[in-house]
Amino acid sequence: MADEVKLLKTWSSLFGLRVVWALKIKGVQYESIDEDLTNKSPSLLLYNPVHKKIPVLVHDSKPVVESLIILEYIEETWKQNPLLPEHPKERAAARFWAKFGDDRVMPSIWEAFIKGREEEEHCAFAPAIENLKFLEEQLKGKQFFGGERIGLVDIALGWLANLIPVLEEIHAIKLMDRERFPLLFAWIQEFSKTPVIADCWPPHEKLVSKYRAIRESLLAAAPPHHA
Amino acid sequence: MADEVKLLKTWSSLFGLRVVWALKIKGVQYESIDEDLTNKSPSLLLYNPVHKKIPVLVHDSKPVVESLIILEYIEETWKQNPLLPEHPKERAAARFWAKFGDDRVMPSIWEAFIKGREEEEHCAFAPAIENLKFLEEQLKGKQFFGGERIGLVDIALGWLANLIPVLEEIHAIKLMDRERFPLLFAWIQEFSKTPVIADCWPPHEKLVSKYRAIRESLLAAAPPHHA
Repeated sequence: MADEVKLLKTWSSLFGLRVVWALKIKGVQYESIDEDLTNKSPSLLLYNPVHKKIPVLVHDSKPVVESLIILEYIEETWKQNPLLPEHPKERAAARFWAKFGDDRVMPSIWEAFIKGREEEEHCAFAPAIENLKFLEEQLKGKQFFGGERIGLVDIALGWLANLIPVLEEIHAIKLMDRERFPLLFAWIQEFSKTPVIADCWPPHEKLVSKYRAIRESLLAAAPPHHA
Repeated sequence: MADEVKLLKTWSSLFGLRVVWALKIKGVQYESIDEDLTNKSPSLLLYNPVHKKIPVLVHDSKPVVESLIILEYIEETWKQNPLLPEHPKERAAARFWAKFGDDRVMPSIWEAFIKGREEEEHCAFAPAIENLKFLEEQLKGKQFFGGERIGLVDIALGWLANLIPVLEEIHAIKLMDRERFPLLFAWIQEFSKTPVIADCWPPHEKLVSKYRAIRESLLAAAPPHHA
């Protein structure tokens, strides 16, 4: 019996894209189901009763949730084109940088994106820049975080390639310029143009509109910055 | 050549204990090094330059950090007495509940512990109780989260067994009572008295003093609750 694989996601979700990319790299056929998060489907509520969030991978009617956990599941279930290195120490390092991306890089960039104003951009972006420096260091001597090919860390950090150009357009700044982050800059180019990634890239203009609207609504709801 | 295994931790760290328990369950010999976090050692800064936190597992001079990642490393390196089930779906479920413990249960209990005052205890503890209900559900028909023996989820949630009695003593309340959470109540008893766990349990009275002092200093530093 062929595997029945479904993926509940949204068109723009950075977490959903991780799963899309991993399935494509593994060559796993799947049915993509776009959720409307303002009106969650009974399937989503059934399959992820705790968080009620996408992405959800449904494999032979059983759900797996949390994007980094789904990546581990995909790696263990479909062995071809490995996403993780073989040695436990390198596997631990890959998991570390994936988690660092979620725990440290993502909130620092999000905070800068929402709160950063032109007059204080340097200050607002400082923590994000500090975090990105650690990632820059990891790319020394490598094309991808995974080495010569895209691996779990590239997939986990793929949202950077996705979001940085959007953020830069909205803020009209250069956060990840070639001088400051030559390796990350090159990585974004290489990663984005890899066919398996490029094939399912959400349209840039649509992302800009979406994130511009999110930023404006959050700023409107927030208390004034200077009392 | 025998493995050289060192563990940088503190006497009370709930995250450090995870690694201690996993190494004991696997029967791995290790050297324990207690860190003074007010005066971090050169080793700690060398081995965990990003977070500068314990625990750090040093195996043949190479560090592994982040307690849940260390557990995966231990599982992959020493195969005896597995901490994770065999099937990828069950492995994903175990990783989910371990992460749920860190992302949801821990902050909700910490918040209640710090902010909860007698007159509003019901309200302060409500999110923690909601989260604990999910865990109670997971224990149905099982002695441990891992089934008949202690597994990754038990180790990851072990801090509950450790901290709940401390918190209850400081607050003079019963959070995890036998009526509300019969299965979690029984699990705390079973887990705590398992020899491999009980052997390295920090002294209850010392934990009470420590957490009482943390709570008092945080409350003293916080703005008044009612303006």
